[in-house]
Amino acid sequence: MKKRILLLTTGGTIASRPTEEGLAPQGDGQVLAGALGGLRESYAITVRDILCLDSSNIQPEEWQLIAHHVYAAREEFDGIVISHGTDTMSYTASMLSFMVRGMPIPVVLTGAQLPIEHPLTDGVDNLRTAFAMAASGVGGVFLAFDRKVMLGCRAVKIRTTHFDAFDSVNWPLVATVGGRGLEIHPEALPPAAEACVLAQELCSRVFLVKLTPGLDPEIFDMLLKMHYRGIVIEAFGAGGLHFVRRDLIAKLHKAALAGLSVVVCSQCLYERSDFSLYQTGQKALEQGVIEGYDMTTEAAVTKLMWALGHSKSPQEVREWFSRSLAGEVAL
Amino acid sequence: MKKRILLLTTGGTIASRPTEEGLAPQGDGQVLAGALGGLRESYAITVRDILCLDSSNIQPEEWQLIAHHVYAAREEFDGIVISHGTDTMSYTASMLSFMVRGMPIPVVLTGAQLPIEHPLTDGVDNLRTAFAMAASGVGGVFLAFDRKVMLGCRAVKIRTTHFDAFDSVNWPLVATVGGRGLEIHPEALPPAAEACVLAQELCSRVFLVKLTPGLDPEIFDMLLKMHYRGIVIEAFGAGGLHFVRRDLIAKLHKAALAGLSVVVCSQCLYERSDFSLYQTGQKALEQGVIEGYDMTTEAAVTKLMWALGHSKSPQEVREWFSRSLAGEVAL
Repeated sequence: MKKRILLLTTGGTIASRPTEEGLAPQGDGQVLAGALGGLRESYAITVRDILCLDSSNIQPEEWQLIAHHVYAAREEFDGIVISHGTDTMSYTASMLSFMVRGMPIPVVLTGAQLPIEHPLTDGVDNLRTAFAMAASGVGGVFLAFDRKVMLGCRAVKIRTTHFDAFDSVNWPLVATVGGRGLEIHPEALPPAAEACVLAQELCSRVFLVKLTPGLDPEIFDMLLKMHYRGIVIEAFGAGGLHFVRRDLIAKLHKAALAGLSVVVCSQCLYERSDFSLYQTGQKALEQGVIEGYDMTTEAAVTKLMWALGHSKSPQEVREWFSRSLAGEVAL
Repeated sequence: MKKRILLLTTGGTIASRPTEEGLAPQGDGQVLAGALGGLRESYAITVRDILCLDSSNIQPEEWQLIAHHVYAAREEFDGIVISHGTDTMSYTASMLSFMVRGMPIPVVLTGAQLPIEHPLTDGVDNLRTAFAMAASGVGGVFLAFDRKVMLGCRAVKIRTTHFDAFDSVNWPLVATVGGRGLEIHPEALPPAAEACVLAQELCSRVFLVKLTPGLDPEIFDMLLKMHYRGIVIEAFGAGGLHFVRRDLIAKLHKAALAGLSVVVCSQCLYERSDFSLYQTGQKALEQGVIEGYDMTTEAAVTKLMWALGHSKSPQEVREWFSRSLAGEVAL
C-alpha cells in the first residue's frame, strides 16, 4: 500500500513565477501539480496550501501555523513534506524541531533554487528526496536538499544560488541519495525524544548581535530599553568579546542583572565555541551567559525564542539550554 | 642577499601562554624568538612588538596603529609579516587592504590555533608560509594560514579550532605551499592598484544587523538615535528582507532619508547576493541601499567604516562601493 504523504506548501522559489517585481510565489499546489504527477505513482499524496510567501516573510506567526498543521496531521499520515523558500528554511526547520519535538513521523522541509517550472529546476529532485525521506518511517524534523537529508536543527544555508545550498553543521548527514536509493545513516539520528507534544509558545523578543571589532557596548543598553528578553551573541572565534576601551563584558553583567538570557556562540560557521579557553571568553562566562557550544546560530536564536516562551525565569531558560532537545547541541 | 622581512607582533594565540584566566598573549617577540631561529637563516628579520592583545580586543584604533607601522616600513623592507590572533584577523586584513591599498610589498597576516610553544603548534608552519609570501615580491595584503595564502579582504575564519581555520570566500587562493615550495597563482591576484597612500581615516559608527525572522524593524530607529552613520545588513539568502507585518523596507527608506549608508549582503557564507532577483530584494534596492554583491561581511563592514571616513556625503560612500579597491568585490 502506498505511504500517505501530506504536502504542506508555503511558497518559496520552488512555487514562484516571474512577475514584474521579480520572482514571487504563486498558488503553490497548482504550480507544483506537474512535478507531483510522477510521485503520485509511488505515494498517496494530499496537498494543503497553507501559506504563499517568499520565505523572507516567514516569521514566528508562520512557524506556529506550520507547527499546528504538522502536529494535527501526525496520525493521519505516514510522513509530511513542507515546501518552503530556501532563505529562512533553516530557521523554520530549527524552530519546528522544538515545537513538535518527538514527532513520530518524518517531517521534511524542502524547496528549490530554481522555480519548479524552470527547465533546469532542482525542485523535482528535491521533492523526490523529500518524499522518500517522508516515507522512511524515521520520526523527526529534517531538511532535504541536493540529494542530502540533514537534521532540521543542524541545517544552514551556506550558498546563495548553487543547488548544493545547505550544509549540515557540526552533525553528519541523516541520509543521502545514490545508486542504492535513499540510505539512512542511523548514527546521525538524534536520541529518541519523549512523546510528541505541540509546544508552540515562543517569545520573539530575541536579538542577534554579530560582533564587529569596536562595537559600541551601548547597544546592550538600547536592547534593554527595547524590552528584549533574550540576546544571542555571535562572538569572535571560539569565544572572544572585546573589553578593552569598549567593555562588552560589563554590559553582559548588566543584562544578566536585568533578567535577560544571553546565549553566546561563534561567528565561525563550523566547529564548537569554547568560552573557557581564552581569558576574554572566561570573563563572559563569569557574567552568567549561556554557552551555545556547537549550535548553529539558527538553532540558538529559535531555541532561545522557544525557551523564553516555555519558561517563567532565566533559570528555566538556562535549564532548557543544558540539554539537547532535538540533536541541536552536543554538550 | 637575504630578503629583509619586518615582523610586527600584535599578540594572539600564537604568542600566548597559559595564565590563571586561560590563554593570554605575552611579550611576543620573546615568545616567538625560538620559532624565528630557523627562519633567520633564510631571511633578515627585524621584530617590532607593537601590540600584545587577544585579537578580540583589536579594534579600529589598533587597525590605524598597524596601518601606520606597515606604511612606514614599506621602503625599508622587502616584506612584512604581522602575527595576530585568529579571531578578528580577517577584519584586520580587510581593513588594512583599504588603509594601505597599493602597498608595493607583501604584507602577510598570520597566527596560530595553538601557542608557538605548544609541541603540536601550527604556528611554526604558518610563520614559514607567511615569511615565504612576504619574500615573494608580490604587493598587497594577504593572510597566510595552514599552507594557504589568501587575499586579505577575502579571508574569513570559518572554523573555531581546526588548523584549516580560514577560507578564501568567493576568490581563489593567491598561493599554496607544497612540494614545489610556495606557488603563486597569478590569476588570483587583484588588478594592480594606484600608488600606495596611507588612508587610515575611518568612522566606527557602523552597525552590523544579521537578520532573523520576525526582527522588529524599530531597531533601525534606535540605530538612528544612536548616531550610527552606516549599517551593514546580512539579509536572508540572495537578498531577502521581511516586509509583511514587520516592514524592514520602510525603515530602509527612513534610514536613507536620514543620510545613513546601508550596505546589504547575504548571511550565506558563500556566493554573491543579488537583490534584483526577488521581489523582497527589489523593494530594498528601491530604497537606495548599496549592494554588497560577493563581499564578505568582514570586508563590507570595514569598507563601510573606511568609506565613511573618506567621504563627505552618502553619494561619495556609494561611489567607493561602486568599485573594487583591493579585490574585495566583483561588481
